[in-house]
Amino acid sequence: MTFETTFPVWNKLNSSQQSKLLNTLITQKVEKGAIIHSGTMNCTGLILVKSGQLRAYMISEEGREITLYRLFDYDMCLFSGYCIMRSIEFEVIVEAEKETELWVIPSEIYKSIMDESADVANFTNEIMGTRFTDVMWLIEQIMWKSLDKRLAAFLIEETKIEESNKLKITHETIANHLGSHREVITRMLRHFQNEGIVKLSRGLIEIVDEDELYSLVD
Amino acid sequence: MTFETTFPVWNKLNSSQQSKLLNTLITQKVEKGAIIHSGTMNCTGLILVKSGQLRAYMISEEGREITLYRLFDYDMCLFSGYCIMRSIEFEVIVEAEKETELWVIPSEIYKSIMDESADVANFTNEIMGTRFTDVMWLIEQIMWKSLDKRLAAFLIEETKIEESNKLKITHETIANHLGSHREVITRMLRHFQNEGIVKLSRGLIEIVDEDELYSLVD
Repeated sequence: MTFETTFPVWNKLNSSQQSKLLNTLITQKVEKGAIIHSGTMNCTGLILVKSGQLRAYMISEEGREITLYRLFDYDMCLFSGYCIMRSIEFEVIVEAEKETELWVIPSEIYKSIMDESADVANFTNEIMGTRFTDVMWLIEQIMWKSLDKRLAAFLIEETKIEESNKLKITHETIANHLGSHREVITRMLRHFQNEGIVKLSRGLIEIVDEDELYSLVD
Repeated sequence: MTFETTFPVWNKLNSSQQSKLLNTLITQKVEKGAIIHSGTMNCTGLILVKSGQLRAYMISEEGREITLYRLFDYDMCLFSGYCIMRSIEFEVIVEAEKETELWVIPSEIYKSIMDESADVANFTNEIMGTRFTDVMWLIEQIMWKSLDKRLAAFLIEETKIEESNKLKITHETIANHLGSHREVITRMLRHFQNEGIVKLSRGLIEIVDEDELYSLVD
């Protein structure tokens, strides 16, 4: 799999734009847990995921986290290259949730191509629209869904990503995804266990009644 | 004030694009309280505010509201023309908070110009970036700020918009902006009154200690 076959608007670029991209592109392989971009670092560049899994989150002054969206194979992260747009005035942190191979497109290179290509600018618009949709969903969740529903939705999402009903994940990590506290997640998981929905053991959550989890979400 | 002098990228359009816009543009004057766009209606078109004040909000299944952002003179609303982008999969409602004069650009006209003009596409990107920044601020607020701080920030915003320390606004309206309940807002305002920050009378909130309001926010 090459950058040329992965970058969605490759064929819309002229040859000068193509070679500019290829000549400045950075290929990286990062370990699980690596911070790839953080608001306090440089304007890292646009990230295209070759394979793996990333998480974009925001963090409060007190260090509390909440996941904004996750990125999988072929997904692209704009906000790690926030300086391509004047109007983006917020900080996200991007962390590898699994070992991840990725390409980084330097921001100034991407911007110079976006400035001259309507195709690339509109592609960028669509990506931002996708993230906007993610974030609007998140607002709905935190405004109007109770934590049991949000936790149920998160566990379902995880079983899909991991393709397994046995999740190796700590209560602390779940709290960071959902913008909650570890103690609160532990209490809710114990409640789920009492209801026969999950089975808890050290570092492992086993989903035993998936139907009940789904009916909680609806 | 004409559309030509208000639309920020007018001079970047060629004459065919300019006449296409002028020939299809709709000028509207709406009363306070009018719903200009709602998720269940058609893809209304892109709104450019000539003068007045709009509010974009989302609504829960149970009818609860929360304000996403507000639009003032010369501001543009993309999401009322959501069908210009495939990736936008959420609904906003746009309501006039004051008598408002506006232009509506039909979505398919805007899209056809955006598809061929990198300038218009990048302008659209910048607007979406601005709204994204608004919405990320909102997530920070609802996740990590207590209601007293949010109410204080809202009252400060209102005194700036109205250029007055006497706000004609109901507790219900404030609740709809902040995604809260009327009873909760009333309780908090009474607490502010006890602290000597505001003075409440029927349909009116007078800010008497602005400094205290500012210190609450920080």
